[in-house]
Amino acid sequence: MNTFGRLFRISILGESHGECVGVLVDGCPAGQPLSEKDLLADLGRRKSGRQGTTARMEEDVPLIKGGVFNGKTTGAPVLILFENKDTDPGAYERIKDTPRPSHADFVAFCKYGGYNDYRGGGAFSGRLTAGLVAAGVIAKMLIHPIEIEANLTEVGGSDDIEGAVRSAIENRDTVGGIVECRVKGLPVGLGEPFFDSLESLLSHIVFSVPGIKGIEFGAGFAASKMAGSAYNDIILDIGGATKTNNAGGINGGITNGNELLFRVAVKPASGIQGKQQTVDLKTGKPAELVIGGRHDTCIALRVPVIMEAVAAIVLADLMSIGRMMPAIVR
Amino acid sequence: MNTFGRLFRISILGESHGECVGVLVDGCPAGQPLSEKDLLADLGRRKSGRQGTTARMEEDVPLIKGGVFNGKTTGAPVLILFENKDTDPGAYERIKDTPRPSHADFVAFCKYGGYNDYRGGGAFSGRLTAGLVAAGVIAKMLIHPIEIEANLTEVGGSDDIEGAVRSAIENRDTVGGIVECRVKGLPVGLGEPFFDSLESLLSHIVFSVPGIKGIEFGAGFAASKMAGSAYNDIILDIGGATKTNNAGGINGGITNGNELLFRVAVKPASGIQGKQQTVDLKTGKPAELVIGGRHDTCIALRVPVIMEAVAAIVLADLMSIGRMMPAIVR
Amino acid sequence: MNTFGRLFRISILGESHGECVGVLVDGCPAGQPLSEKDLLADLGRRKSGRQGTTARMEEDVPLIKGGVFNGKTTGAPVLILFENKDTDPGAYERIKDTPRPSHADFVAFCKYGGYNDYRGGGAFSGRLTAGLVAAGVIAKMLIHPIEIEANLTEVGGSDDIEGAVRSAIENRDTVGGIVECRVKGLPVGLGEPFFDSLESLLSHIVFSVPGIKGIEFGAGFAASKMAGSAYNDIILDIGGATKTNNAGGINGGITNGNELLFRVAVKPASGIQGKQQTVDLKTGKPAELVIGGRHDTCIALRVPVIMEAVAAIVLADLMSIGRMMPAIVR
Amino acid sequence: MNTFGRLFRISILGESHGECVGVLVDGCPAGQPLSEKDLLADLGRRKSGRQGTTARMEEDVPLIKGGVFNGKTTGAPVLILFENKDTDPGAYERIKDTPRPSHADFVAFCKYGGYNDYRGGGAFSGRLTAGLVAAGVIAKMLIHPIEIEANLTEVGGSDDIEGAVRSAIENRDTVGGIVECRVKGLPVGLGEPFFDSLESLLSHIVFSVPGIKGIEFGAGFAASKMAGSAYNDIILDIGGATKTNNAGGINGGITNGNELLFRVAVKPASGIQGKQQTVDLKTGKPAELVIGGRHDTCIALRVPVIMEAVAAIVLADLMSIGRMMPAIVR
Repeated sequence: MNTFGRLFRISILGESHGECVGVLVDGCPAGQPLSEKDLLADLGRRKSGRQGTTARMEEDVPLIKGGVFNGKTTGAPVLILFENKDTDPGAYERIKDTPRPSHADFVAFCKYGGYNDYRGGGAFSGRLTAGLVAAGVIAKMLIHPIEIEANLTEVGGSDDIEGAVRSAIENRDTVGGIVECRVKGLPVGLGEPFFDSLESLLSHIVFSVPGIKGIEFGAGFAASKMAGSAYNDIILDIGGATKTNNAGGINGGITNGNELLFRVAVKPASGIQGKQQTVDLKTGKPAELVIGGRHDTCIALRVPVIMEAVAAIVLADLMSIGRMMPAIVR
Repeated sequence: MNTFGRLFRISILGESHGECVGVLVDGCPAGQPLSEKDLLADLGRRKSGRQGTTARMEEDVPLIKGGVFNGKTTGAPVLILFENKDTDPGAYERIKDTPRPSHADFVAFCKYGGYNDYRGGGAFSGRLTAGLVAAGVIAKMLIHPIEIEANLTEVGGSDDIEGAVRSAIENRDTVGGIVECRVKGLPVGLGEPFFDSLESLLSHIVFSVPGIKGIEFGAGFAASKMAGSAYNDIILDIGGATKTNNAGGINGGITNGNELLFRVAVKPASGIQGKQQTVDLKTGKPAELVIGGRHDTCIALRVPVIMEAVAAIVLADLMSIGRMMPAIVR
Repeated sequence: MNTFGRLFRISILGESHGECVGVLVDGCPAGQPLSEKDLLADLGRRKSGRQGTTARMEEDVPLIKGGVFNGKTTGAPVLILFENKDTDPGAYERIKDTPRPSHADFVAFCKYGGYNDYRGGGAFSGRLTAGLVAAGVIAKMLIHPIEIEANLTEVGGSDDIEGAVRSAIENRDTVGGIVECRVKGLPVGLGEPFFDSLESLLSHIVFSVPGIKGIEFGAGFAASKMAGSAYNDIILDIGGATKTNNAGGINGGITNGNELLFRVAVKPASGIQGKQQTVDLKTGKPAELVIGGRHDTCIALRVPVIMEAVAAIVLADLMSIGRMMPAIVR
Repeated sequence: MNTFGRLFRISILGESHGECVGVLVDGCPAGQPLSEKDLLADLGRRKSGRQGTTARMEEDVPLIKGGVFNGKTTGAPVLILFENKDTDPGAYERIKDTPRPSHADFVAFCKYGGYNDYRGGGAFSGRLTAGLVAAGVIAKMLIHPIEIEANLTEVGGSDDIEGAVRSAIENRDTVGGIVECRVKGLPVGLGEPFFDSLESLLSHIVFSVPGIKGIEFGAGFAASKMAGSAYNDIILDIGGATKTNNAGGINGGITNGNELLFRVAVKPASGIQGKQQTVDLKTGKPAELVIGGRHDTCIALRVPVIMEAVAAIVLADLMSIGRMMPAIVR
């Protein structure tokens, strides 16, 4: 379903080239100052227009349609919509019957019996992350003063990120990247053993973002190569500070008071130039496809603000649970 | 909470050195032949006793306490318990006040105000995965003839797995590893866009297993270094078969008919020999700890059957939803 | 939270005198023909304008903002909004500090710390049932050919319904009523023992409708006065037909193949004329209140179509679960 | 499913004549003193053995199997089992093919394809309410000092309750009743508008109890006959105290600080003596049935403690949500 969270709960909606995309945020406490203006900075970080992102220029003007009164949240659900303006549906008619490789076109056609809105990926589009980012802004307000910061640390395996993007553009190709997210100021005790471990909740929402192929916490995949004597995080003091942070700030699914650290792998954008082999959904026969539309070279460029948003959403949900707060913080 | 799943729903329970551990399986359709014997093969694969696993020898005899009548499931919840027999609680008294590095001891103490059952990790113990494995056996029956197979492919960075474990034992150290899981025979269409993407659901339950630090699907982290022209999975036929499988069998969060493939990173067991620095929870001062008890050298050895179980649990849940089955399969 | 349902899931939103009210419908299968026109008949039955309902004339024009493409549902969430046009916020300024008796004003003020949108009841308003009715139309389509019919059977204790309403208007008072809902054509097997009993699910959503004070199934409260020999529903045939229907079509929480029958008690509209005693939220002292605005004499007049909607919503959710369908129907 | 609650979450399990019945209680905060002894008083109130209840004598000895350590809850799920001892399965062989009127036998057979445990109603049995009562004891502890008291106020339409039961026994018949539940000391603000209204949550769990046919809050069905001028609860002071309590302590789905009051209708026990007409599930032809086994004359006798339990469970869940607590109470 299109809903995430228990107490701070978001539902996303809309299609890339339909009337709008948006988000419904439920469980937001009353009295939080909130205006459309507050959403613009993070939405700007997600937007296209920079080198390496699509030429589709959506203004991404958020419209708050409910849940705010006299400039403050009311306790009722907050609905935020973004009207789609710079749509070019004609460009997508050709993909109706020839699904784009590594996009969701084929599975959407099968799952929804051909009734899916195929234009620009429809409900599968990365454009729906605008709603995630808007909800993330609210979540960040709620968990203040906890600080979340995500950065793009690698593109195409290189830390010369601009160079790697430029080179992909020159090759008329696309390229993947790594985004790292760090959260400071967390109390000890968020998350639960087993099914609501913080890693479980974070990875759940992280993998809802299109294009993510992997996630790791702390030492992550490198931990698989380590000896326990090198991996173990020595405990330094009664606040739980550790000498190293191979755990990424989480033990037993629960924050341990150190920095939360995770890294995600973003695949190269699928909308490459040139001919690609695919299948014709009408005839069932092999077909060739040249993708039109306007596409990103490196979707990883837009991912940092999205990672901040989803981390904030998980934390806002966990911190809504009074009883569950860690005993030593109470 | 200790519950996972919407229609096929499992709840785990118990503590490592309490009376029992177990699992409650709800949403199991009626009429499925099931006996305690059916559970033994997979439970045997999880058990200790092999080189590199703990000397604690639990028989892991499953007791079905409800939901089965005349050898078949009744539609009521299935309760499976494992009594704890080879407990050695005395060995854990020393950790009561000196939390073991990289275990959940410190966070459990904080979160539960010191009331947690600290013996052997209590409710955080890997012993609770016995319930996951038992539920996994039922799930595998329900999704038959879909085939799931997980294998340990690396230990300590090496594919000489036995050698790497032996070497860690010789060094009186512990070591991590990589487990790879493959699922064959999936229909197109399982999973949903965004929050119930198959990656979201799988990673959610995977990270509930103690000791997992990362997960990747298909090309995974390597995708971040690739160009789109190399990454894209060319579609070969109307069944959705692709030439490569960099997507790991999932597009847009939904199975695409190819093999599902994911890999997880398992950290080295935390229960290393020798002195470790920690803190005394009573005095608040630095302390030294030598862990007693009996511990694994390489918990990754036990992880393959657990990964099969959790994958089967997610798939059984998704396949319980009749309406959601892919249109072309109906 | 403002969400109901597991697989067919609705979220309501908006405020009575804010920008809009609406509903987000998730889990609607793809391919269902749906247009705004389809919603008008049931919305018309809910509307005001008749004798005994408020003079506020909202057009209740539904706007489908997502989830429909080329006249059919896409499988993505369906967003339906109703813009508020005939608002008269000034009329509500006086209730800001003097909560209306038997309305939600006082609890809303307390729960949301005074930040609630108090105009016309805000998010507590009966106006939000427009979204329920719209979602109900979709649900009715999905459960076709099951037939749901609800009727107002009593007003003010009398079956001369028009007379009772007229009399209340003459007295410048308001009046309650009874609505009876019957569902024909249900298969055996919907609902589950204990927590997801059909009575549990129906009563859950029925009591979300403002103004409902009681619900009974089949013989209902009269059953408490009966002997078992008179109450028991003799089983007539292998289809489960019973001679009487004291159970109201449900045994053990599950449909038994007979007509589903429930009755709800609707309180008199709270917005009575004349002075009422209340408290001043600013001074904490007793105050007098004369309610302005435009109000219903008998909200029960609008309840039948709402009861049909909520019954359809519950049934659409239950019938989405393929595996759970009764064995003999499969 | 067999689970109820969001943060304080219970799952019931077992069958009437299987190995055991029980309850799994998740979300119980750590540090609550709890022993099996604490459960006995309420379990005793539910038990049979009195005039009007079945001759089946189950000791109802609760066994706490997890979640408690050193006499206090640990924060892990609490499993409580009751072994079935005084079973008489032979007595139920005759109902295997001839479903008892007004029991769940017929629907269980259909829904579970004949694989249900039919002995004594299996998973549909009132015996599973032992688990509800045990969970209710824990919930009562958590919401202390809120006071819940339920009483049987009518049997067979009469307030001479003993007489009505005796008379039913003499007639070899069964009889229904009314149970009234009152809760004192609630803060303002529990519950939410629409789908998580307190009436929604309470009625949801109340109708999971076998034999309940109706529920009403405050004036309830009588409200449908009232004029608004008589119904409205005048507000007396800033604490929200009202002159009358026709609302039953709830406005807009939220506690208003007055006494919470609801009443439920309990049907006559279905296990009447003498021949009853039914159908033979094997031949599909009409059949006659004489019920054996040991049965209650008036199940309403056991319902008060169950109503207290379910009310406490709902309140414990709502009060686990720190953020959602009413602003004026914080």
